[in-house]
Amino acid sequence: MGEFELIRQIFMPLAGQSGSAALLLGPGDDCAIQRLAPGRELVFSIDTLVEGVHFPKNYDAEKLGWRSLAVAVSDLAAMGADPECFTLALTLPEARREWLEAFAKGLGAAAKSFGIALAGGDTTRGPLTLSIQVHGSVPAGQALLRSGAQPGDLVCVSGSVGDAGAALKFLDHPDPSPDVAVLLNRYHFPSPRLELGKALRGLASAVIDVSDGLLADLGHILDASGVGAQLDADLIPMSESLCRMMGRGGLRAAVVAGDDYELCVTMPPQSWRSLAETVKCQLTVIGTVVVGHGVRMDHGEDLNGTGGYDHFGEVQ
Amino acid sequence: MGEFELIRQIFMPLAGQSGSAALLLGPGDDCAIQRLAPGRELVFSIDTLVEGVHFPKNYDAEKLGWRSLAVAVSDLAAMGADPECFTLALTLPEARREWLEAFAKGLGAAAKSFGIALAGGDTTRGPLTLSIQVHGSVPAGQALLRSGAQPGDLVCVSGSVGDAGAALKFLDHPDPSPDVAVLLNRYHFPSPRLELGKALRGLASAVIDVSDGLLADLGHILDASGVGAQLDADLIPMSESLCRMMGRGGLRAAVVAGDDYELCVTMPPQSWRSLAETVKCQLTVIGTVVVGHGVRMDHGEDLNGTGGYDHFGEVQ
Repeated sequence: MGEFELIRQIFMPLAGQSGSAALLLGPGDDCAIQRLAPGRELVFSIDTLVEGVHFPKNYDAEKLGWRSLAVAVSDLAAMGADPECFTLALTLPEARREWLEAFAKGLGAAAKSFGIALAGGDTTRGPLTLSIQVHGSVPAGQALLRSGAQPGDLVCVSGSVGDAGAALKFLDHPDPSPDVAVLLNRYHFPSPRLELGKALRGLASAVIDVSDGLLADLGHILDASGVGAQLDADLIPMSESLCRMMGRGGLRAAVVAGDDYELCVTMPPQSWRSLAETVKCQLTVIGTVVVGHGVRMDHGEDLNGTGGYDHFGEVQ
Repeated sequence: MGEFELIRQIFMPLAGQSGSAALLLGPGDDCAIQRLAPGRELVFSIDTLVEGVHFPKNYDAEKLGWRSLAVAVSDLAAMGADPECFTLALTLPEARREWLEAFAKGLGAAAKSFGIALAGGDTTRGPLTLSIQVHGSVPAGQALLRSGAQPGDLVCVSGSVGDAGAALKFLDHPDPSPDVAVLLNRYHFPSPRLELGKALRGLASAVIDVSDGLLADLGHILDASGVGAQLDADLIPMSESLCRMMGRGGLRAAVVAGDDYELCVTMPPQSWRSLAETVKCQLTVIGTVVVGHGVRMDHGEDLNGTGGYDHFGEVQ
């Protein structure tokens, strides 16, 4: 069997297994074809992961499959979009069946979990690199942008931050402790906040997913909206595992480390009050949007000059 | 100025310069947003080019910019689609201003020529690799697929084939002859057959663009349609330059070499008769679709066992 036939056999099942009926034609022609329901708009984003840069060399193929799709789908969550389909551009040094099957297993599990179908792709030979483009849809005019934050809005973050960043040093040295397992799980299996994103349509003034770090990503909202923020370091939500493992040092991971794929959200106080309890319990208020630019943080003096908020304050 | 600010400055002008008004939100947020006109469907395709595999090492950046977008847009031509917008996932070892500006110049010229706007992208550090996803649209149900060829249909190819493949050996050794310049121009600046593709809506039974070679790509049509083809080698259209440079050897380049980005088309004879002269003059009839599988070629005995039609005959 040829290499391309092998790849076709392994990935083809992902084309039909899940996702929207809007995918009219999947892999195998010059293009795929997607229909948009009336009154909806297409939202899409492309993300690249390079071996040795975005994931470790010899990273487990199944985990890579899950993680690469989850990272891309997180951008749909940040727009409040319903996932529809995705394309995969996979560059790899050699077509080894074992690696491809493990990768497709992780990718397929993620695709099923997020409700998104493989629409097409390209496989080429070269250094291990993946680009994934995800397609979603939103009711016209309801996409959640970065640019709508207003002074007086609350700044919120979903779940807890810092776990994935703190996990980095354990990637090559797994530790038997349950807390390390929690951190590693956050790194390996990010869970895009799709339901939360959709629930925030019409309520949030700005949303971004936390991929580069809470302060850096909040900085993108502030920059796009032309405002500043006042945060309280004591309010930053951290997991119990991160607190136990790193104590106060965990706070630094929580504000500067990336890879958590939580949502950072701004919204007017009246939106907060109108949130359903099931939505509110996924969010923590960590500060307010203010006139100005950059981030000021109460109770975060020990983060000064550490590449934390001072640094990001300047680039805004 | 930071590396990412440099990249933003260089590529941002491509977002606004051309393309469809359907692009509601371009680069800079978590996702881009595209609107589809009522009654139209989205067609999309992703292509990856790896340095040293799909283009030579140290290939001219401006040519790479043009070529990488042209190659991707050719898939839209093969669907009969109107181009709308594209995303660029660019992985490069370092952000050199000179290289980026030259690349963006070529990419921008191609985008303007094809009427397609940059919608978003991702820039990462690593071995030079590009993935481009192109978006187009077609009236609902009118996309040109590979799967509709029927026995009795004519097999046609646009323009002439073989030039780009024959140019490969001159890439590192430019030759002052005008004929070599013609061949090299075909390699460096492919011109997707967008107008032809659109003119074939409702008339062609199957279309594919010639990226892997005429016989290989026709083979994909035959495979998808469950038919065979009878070609006449004497009818394969070759440029005067290719004939002068390679004589009969040019025929081999014309049937097995890729990179021409012409269209290979099947259509019922009545469609051929109804074509406008301006469309017909872009096409040459080279054979007919027959019951069976694979390709048989009259007057092509000297291509036997050369990796030419015998080889591709077997894989169909």
